Amino acid sequence: MIAAATGLPFDAIRRLLADLPGPDESARQAVASRDAVLTKPAGSLGRLEEIAMWVAAWQGRAKPEVKRPLVAVFAANHGIAERGVSAFPQSVTKAMVANFAAGGAAINQLAAVAGARLRVVPLDLDRPTADFTKEPAMDEDAFLRAVATGYDSVPADADLVCLGEMGIGNTTAAAAIAAALFGGGGTRWAGRGTGIDDDGLARKRAAIDFALKRHAGILGDPLHVAAALGGRELAAILGAALAARRQRIPVLIDGFVCTAAVAPLAKLRVDGLAHTVAAHVSAEAAHRALLDELGLKPLVDLGMRLGEASGAVVGALILRAAVACHTGMATFAEAGVSDKL
Amino acid sequence: MIAAATGLPFDAIRRLLADLPGPDESARQAVASRDAVLTKPAGSLGRLEEIAMWVAAWQGRAKPEVKRPLVAVFAANHGIAERGVSAFPQSVTKAMVANFAAGGAAINQLAAVAGARLRVVPLDLDRPTADFTKEPAMDEDAFLRAVATGYDSVPADADLVCLGEMGIGNTTAAAAIAAALFGGGGTRWAGRGTGIDDDGLARKRAAIDFALKRHAGILGDPLHVAAALGGRELAAILGAALAARRQRIPVLIDGFVCTAAVAPLAKLRVDGLAHTVAAHVSAEAAHRALLDELGLKPLVDLGMRLGEASGAVVGALILRAAVACHTGMATFAEAGVSDKL
Repeated sequence: MIAAATGLPFDAIRRLLADLPGPDESARQAVASRDAVLTKPAGSLGRLEEIAMWVAAWQGRAKPEVKRPLVAVFAANHGIAERGVSAFPQSVTKAMVANFAAGGAAINQLAAVAGARLRVVPLDLDRPTADFTKEPAMDEDAFLRAVATGYDSVPADADLVCLGEMGIGNTTAAAAIAAALFGGGGTRWAGRGTGIDDDGLARKRAAIDFALKRHAGILGDPLHVAAALGGRELAAILGAALAARRQRIPVLIDGFVCTAAVAPLAKLRVDGLAHTVAAHVSAEAAHRALLDELGLKPLVDLGMRLGEASGAVVGALILRAAVACHTGMATFAEAGVSDKL
Repeated sequence: MIAAATGLPFDAIRRLLADLPGPDESARQAVASRDAVLTKPAGSLGRLEEIAMWVAAWQGRAKPEVKRPLVAVFAANHGIAERGVSAFPQSVTKAMVANFAAGGAAINQLAAVAGARLRVVPLDLDRPTADFTKEPAMDEDAFLRAVATGYDSVPADADLVCLGEMGIGNTTAAAAIAAALFGGGGTRWAGRGTGIDDDGLARKRAAIDFALKRHAGILGDPLHVAAALGGRELAAILGAALAARRQRIPVLIDGFVCTAAVAPLAKLRVDGLAHTVAAHVSAEAAHRALLDELGLKPLVDLGMRLGEASGAVVGALILRAAVACHTGMATFAEAGVSDKL
């Protein structure tokens, strides 16, 4: 869809962004009105009530549904991994993709519990992006191809999309994007990722700070930032979030990397992430700061920091519960329950 | 089981409490050992890893299972409700029990999402307990009958029990128990429950403070407190938690009322609640304080305050996810994934 657009790559994305649907306020109001007469004290389901309204608003229907949730996990490799910023070797990215295919990863178990379809999309794993301390990770064409791959991964019949990633080295890319978009440098945004030691953390911070200077000229443009400092799986996540928005499908985002991947959408358009909910806050320290910058309030805080959409799918369990309560509960009148003294 | 015991009622419970199984540390260690070689960075599933260990330890098996979860909801009426401490009339308790039976309540939808069996146990709804500002809510025999009903509601084949309640007026009973066990009076422990107004809240606080003076002589004994200030559904919850412990079944507790119901077990025995996890922290303000007093850390904070085991079952969704990850994931060796640089 994006690939078919004419003109400069970044402009193709900007044109898509200029024409995004908003929430369906009548659907939201229909849920709020029904919620008020369900057999429970007003407001007593707390955030579950908000979620049901949000799902309805973005699905554009008065009766929200989560029957065909999709979990999309994008995987890629990073030139920056060569700089000793991860506790694991780059070969693990491909091995974990094989593990996803074989059903042995956490996300396979979680998707099954949530009744969700799992789609794993590896992006050119044998060809890592460039080391962004030396040059842009991707040029515009490469970035757009990855965005388009993510965009095309979202089927029109999904009613919820959980986004996630796998890519050794990608918390460094995510931290670099966060630093470029929100300031603060490597010290603020670099964390231990999969479990890097003190020396590795120092290398990670230094690489980010070096890259911020190296790419100082493009830091004002969120799409240039995503291309120069990101990675293919982050670009694909951005594309998938955009596709979901255009198809009126609510999105649950996962942890730090996933949040950094979609952050440019919020910088490009004030309501660019209005169709997304942060499923969880990761144990990766900078995630909370990034969610705060984006005004996103996570559903749960379980100390997870795995990626793979694992946190997003835990959020999907709660979202399914919220929608089930709203659609399945009886009203006071139906149940013959008094709603007041 | 309890009813068959001889001697004074409270002594029957004390004898059960003196002979409780502890956690199976070898099962816990087996899960920890396997967890360390699963295809994920060490610790990256955060609290999900702790939960899998806890389930194994209390089930007493190296491979934890959640295949037969039970949701047990106990319902009763309270003499204290006559003092204008609730936003709803007492008739709502019975109407909601009918709603549970008809499948129209939140807990019906949540139990279905969690794949859990729902057992609703009304306790003598037409005969509220005594108004505890005038006399003990229950005498020892009545208390023990309710405890025994709860005890007998837990089937041996359940592998998880989610506890909850329904009872107009029962946040007042719960607050009175919390105040008796942990100090602080009505101001500290009374909240708005289902949505009482300012005048009602003042009446609620006053009723609690009055009752604390009225029953000053028994406040040092947790079982006397539970009988004098509690209610039948709270006593049944205490009994069900005790039955689960003796049958090695882990327990998820719900909100403020449910937590107050089991709190006497922690006062009677330092590890009396070791087999329970707090599924959520309620929007009822005093719930967090009560969890803090008991050293319980809730799984989620979603602003819920419905009761009915609704928060417990949201916790069960997370617990199922934790157990599924642990039991279904491949090891590094099985998946051919490198576990280090």
